[in-house]
Amino acid sequence: MREVASMYGTVVAVFLVILVAALQGSAPPESSLPYRVPLDPQGTMELSWNVSYTQETIHFELLVRGLQAGVLFGMSDRGELQNADVVVLWTDGDHAYFADAWTDAKGQVHLDAQQDYQLLWAHRTPDGLALLFRRPFSTCDPKDYLIEDGTVHLVYGILEQPLRSLEAINASSLRTGLQRVQLLKPELPEPALPPDTRTMEVRAPHVLIPDQETTYWCHMAELPRGFARHHIVMYEPIVSEGNEALVHHMEVFQCSAEFESFPHFSGPCDSKMKPERLNYCRHVLAAWALGAKAFYYPEEAGLAFGGPGSSRYLRLEVHYHNPLRMEGRRDSSGIRLYYTATLRRFDAGIMELGLVYTPVMAIPPGETDFVLTGYCTDKCTQLALPPAGIHIFASQLHTHLTGRRVVTVLARGGRERQIVNQDNHYSPHFQEIRMLKKVVTVYPGDVLITSCAYNTEDRERATVGGFGILEEMCVNYIHYYPQTQLELCKSAVDAGFLQKYFHLVNRFNSEDVCTCPQASVPQQFASVPWNSFDREVLKALYGFAPISMHCNKSTAVRFQGEWDLQPLPEIASRLPEPTPHCPAHTGHGPAGPTVVSIAGGKG
Amino acid sequence: MREVASMYGTVVAVFLVILVAALQGSAPPESSLPYRVPLDPQGTMELSWNVSYTQETIHFELLVRGLQAGVLFGMSDRGELQNADVVVLWTDGDHAYFADAWTDAKGQVHLDAQQDYQLLWAHRTPDGLALLFRRPFSTCDPKDYLIEDGTVHLVYGILEQPLRSLEAINASSLRTGLQRVQLLKPELPEPALPPDTRTMEVRAPHVLIPDQETTYWCHMAELPRGFARHHIVMYEPIVSEGNEALVHHMEVFQCSAEFESFPHFSGPCDSKMKPERLNYCRHVLAAWALGAKAFYYPEEAGLAFGGPGSSRYLRLEVHYHNPLRMEGRRDSSGIRLYYTATLRRFDAGIMELGLVYTPVMAIPPGETDFVLTGYCTDKCTQLALPPAGIHIFASQLHTHLTGRRVVTVLARGGRERQIVNQDNHYSPHFQEIRMLKKVVTVYPGDVLITSCAYNTEDRERATVGGFGILEEMCVNYIHYYPQTQLELCKSAVDAGFLQKYFHLVNRFNSEDVCTCPQASVPQQFASVPWNSFDREVLKALYGFAPISMHCNKSTAVRFQGEWDLQPLPEIASRLPEPTPHCPAHTGHGPAGPTVVSIAGGKG
Repeated sequence: MREVASMYGTVVAVFLVILVAALQGSAPPESSLPYRVPLDPQGTMELSWNVSYTQETIHFELLVRGLQAGVLFGMSDRGELQNADVVVLWTDGDHAYFADAWTDAKGQVHLDAQQDYQLLWAHRTPDGLALLFRRPFSTCDPKDYLIEDGTVHLVYGILEQPLRSLEAINASSLRTGLQRVQLLKPELPEPALPPDTRTMEVRAPHVLIPDQETTYWCHMAELPRGFARHHIVMYEPIVSEGNEALVHHMEVFQCSAEFESFPHFSGPCDSKMKPERLNYCRHVLAAWALGAKAFYYPEEAGLAFGGPGSSRYLRLEVHYHNPLRMEGRRDSSGIRLYYTATLRRFDAGIMELGLVYTPVMAIPPGETDFVLTGYCTDKCTQLALPPAGIHIFASQLHTHLTGRRVVTVLARGGRERQIVNQDNHYSPHFQEIRMLKKVVTVYPGDVLITSCAYNTEDRERATVGGFGILEEMCVNYIHYYPQTQLELCKSAVDAGFLQKYFHLVNRFNSEDVCTCPQASVPQQFASVPWNSFDREVLKALYGFAPISMHCNKSTAVRFQGEWDLQPLPEIASRLPEPTPHCPAHTGHGPAGPTVVSIAGGKG
Repeated sequence: MREVASMYGTVVAVFLVILVAALQGSAPPESSLPYRVPLDPQGTMELSWNVSYTQETIHFELLVRGLQAGVLFGMSDRGELQNADVVVLWTDGDHAYFADAWTDAKGQVHLDAQQDYQLLWAHRTPDGLALLFRRPFSTCDPKDYLIEDGTVHLVYGILEQPLRSLEAINASSLRTGLQRVQLLKPELPEPALPPDTRTMEVRAPHVLIPDQETTYWCHMAELPRGFARHHIVMYEPIVSEGNEALVHHMEVFQCSAEFESFPHFSGPCDSKMKPERLNYCRHVLAAWALGAKAFYYPEEAGLAFGGPGSSRYLRLEVHYHNPLRMEGRRDSSGIRLYYTATLRRFDAGIMELGLVYTPVMAIPPGETDFVLTGYCTDKCTQLALPPAGIHIFASQLHTHLTGRRVVTVLARGGRERQIVNQDNHYSPHFQEIRMLKKVVTVYPGDVLITSCAYNTEDRERATVGGFGILEEMCVNYIHYYPQTQLELCKSAVDAGFLQKYFHLVNRFNSEDVCTCPQASVPQQFASVPWNSFDREVLKALYGFAPISMHCNKSTAVRFQGEWDLQPLPEIASRLPEPTPHCPAHTGHGPAGPTVVSIAGGKG
């Protein structure tokens, strides 16, 4: 192995420093790649990138420490190395090559007929080999991944030995992995912070990171006694140096004001030692996930905390992701809150859209793409929103383990108008609060439709809605201002119509299944023999039956009105599917692999 | 107008004879364009073409008589001039141009960013201007039409005045039209005809073509008395000169042997004078439609006619399409049968696949793409087919007015294996017998699945299955050998399960609709309130409920066995969607319109 590595080093040294001037002109200086994530748990590969919305192009810089015979890097639907869109840097022992490639359903690598990743330069730096390349969001090559808003599953693989050709690679025989990021970050101007801005750090107390793959660490913090009402105007992550690849996401929750005090605790969230009362610390103050930068509130709004009616207690939750089970690592990561005593014009609020947590909304087993939809109806927004409307500026999508896609659409006058937030590669393991690229204003009478697609291929029984980790949710937490009394605007199918469904399932299936009304809804779903008819009719029911609305001031208090047996909102016109822009085929791209000339360093 | 035409003539004369040698090298001589159709009813535009399956490319030659300021020619989903893929030849008064373009949903013409039609030459000939150009079957440009097997709707438009630019054209303001053809003709070797081949012409008797848009002309013919059993081995169209644009399709039927004789008749098929008995002349001997060439039987088979047990009476049906209501045209078109007394090894047979003609199979109103499916089950093929199987060599797809797509797929062992015949742009106005590109062998135990997609957007009530022109069918007449006793292998949903459906429709809809079992099935369908639930559940029913099979020796005689309440064939794996091959983007194509240099003639 060492032999190979040194051979490769020699090979690299042989290359002349040939920089293609025309290409280099379009390469941004390194400092203009504002986003960065480690790709692998050791942090040997690191990706930086920027986004040009005018050119619809991303510049990637891939830094590879301790390069062996090459690397694969790319994107795929859900992080698998099969059917992935990749670039490959490899050596045959004599030369180094760079090419746009793809992997088939078996992981076999193939050269792409259309070369859409353009190598701008390769540099030997003190940290390792740095490759700069760019790619359009959309290439219109069916072998390429379409880069969209929302989660992107980055994949990588490490080549340990020189290869005769690209086609000799099968990704399944490599050391590979995935990293989830939002590539298309919004490019919003950062609002100026008020002059009296102060900061507060909520950090893990020099925690010894457990040597297990997944740890959720819970740590209680406290606001000073007599801490007055303030507005949080910004927050940013603090990640302990060296732990960049281990700290996956962090959230700061405020506890419920109904309890005078909360016990101190610092330990794994699933510890038996964790006091029960910590379950009442669920109001999100701040959330960060890998790859995210600082979160700024809009200039006219802030998130209120402190003061009367607000708990002094905060809970920090840090998700450590330690697949290599490294031992002895200490961590003091956390979140730095920026807040002001000069309250801004508006309080920001958080509202829950989507489905009520009830078993009447269920997903049959063995489905690859089953969609459930929750509504916030015109009747509810009419009653609860101010005449000037509310402005949604950020959104956090939420499902449990089987969620695969989430979208919220705004409709007005029976027509879909705009997408509030959408993630076509949603992962329950990557739930960021995302700033919207464009603030969405919702007026009284508007309808908000939240749909989630689930994959239950590996389940043998129906997955019902509920709080349990093996049950499902479909929620969009929208961050908006000015704050209103409306905390929850969600729906579920009418329970009586669901009983009609169970009745007809009984009638159509010759077996005598217990779908009797004495049974609980989960029991009834468990006894459905899931043939194509039962599946299709359940879909038809959810698309037709009246709904029960939760139009609530808080979890328990509804706005006044009749909320049962409400008609489904009628949507006469849907938003068209976006048609990706294909870059003009200028014919200037290489038709095959590029020989890589590596500049700088001693090789 | 004359002024414009002459100006254009002058313009053309100005051009030098510049032939791009590199391109001309790949242009086939005119004689190698074997297929030809007139595009417009006057026959002023004529299209010839050939097909290269190795290059996946078509060469088109468009002949334009009496050219004015230019023409549009192209393809669209169903013959509309909106959302069409077109080439445009136009003049701005100074130069002539040729470009790949597309029309939007309003008919507005736009230059295509990717130029996929390649002009090879333009020639002035004694008949008019001839343009030779080529296009790949598939371009992977989303604005381009994908040329597939089956019907292609060709469209044209005539430009009467010079234009500043392409973008000044709106197709809705032009004289336009459509012509249906099968572009991708199979390239089969023509089997040699036996030395004793004789011919027989079945022709219209110098008919005066009525001056109405559509006429089906019925003409009775007779085989000589004592005409022995022969095999038809080939047939070809005879189209009276000058009527090429008027004769749309022709069929020769043999009458039923159960009647001794049939009255002579020659007149419109819908005439009140037509004898009732002619309805018993329905056994197809030969069928031709516009653009088709001679039909050859495979070397080892022929279609038997003559001899004992076979009627001497034939019915010729000619469809005249006369949208310009031209008067005084006479026609003697017909079909020339080539037959031999030396019987070939196998009799060819015709079998009906698809749906039984029964109202239990229905399409809700207002559907754009509702699919009904008929099965020929393993149980039936097991019983009726010889161990060595049967060989399907041709197929004629059939629906009534709302049919839009038809496909038959062969499945074996629960897996779809191959497509027997498919038409994604099927039109009930263009029902050819098509030779299959590849003979399909069906073994005992195989399953044949025939699906038809319907568009009932303009209907207000459900369309039920049946014989009536406003009812629907879903049929594939397959031509095969060796002939077996199996004439019909079709299915329909079980009637009892349909009654369960009507019952649940009643239960879910608060209105008290009459879906009582005393009513007839068409009445029951007529009383369904077609909401999304009723539609989706009907689909689910057709995809789930057991079927009643017609596995018949003739229309009335079933093979022995239990054919009711049969399970739907289980298909575990479907054929993958074909992924079109995208031509490599060599970057050699023009980025915009080509200036046209017209060679030959005096201008």
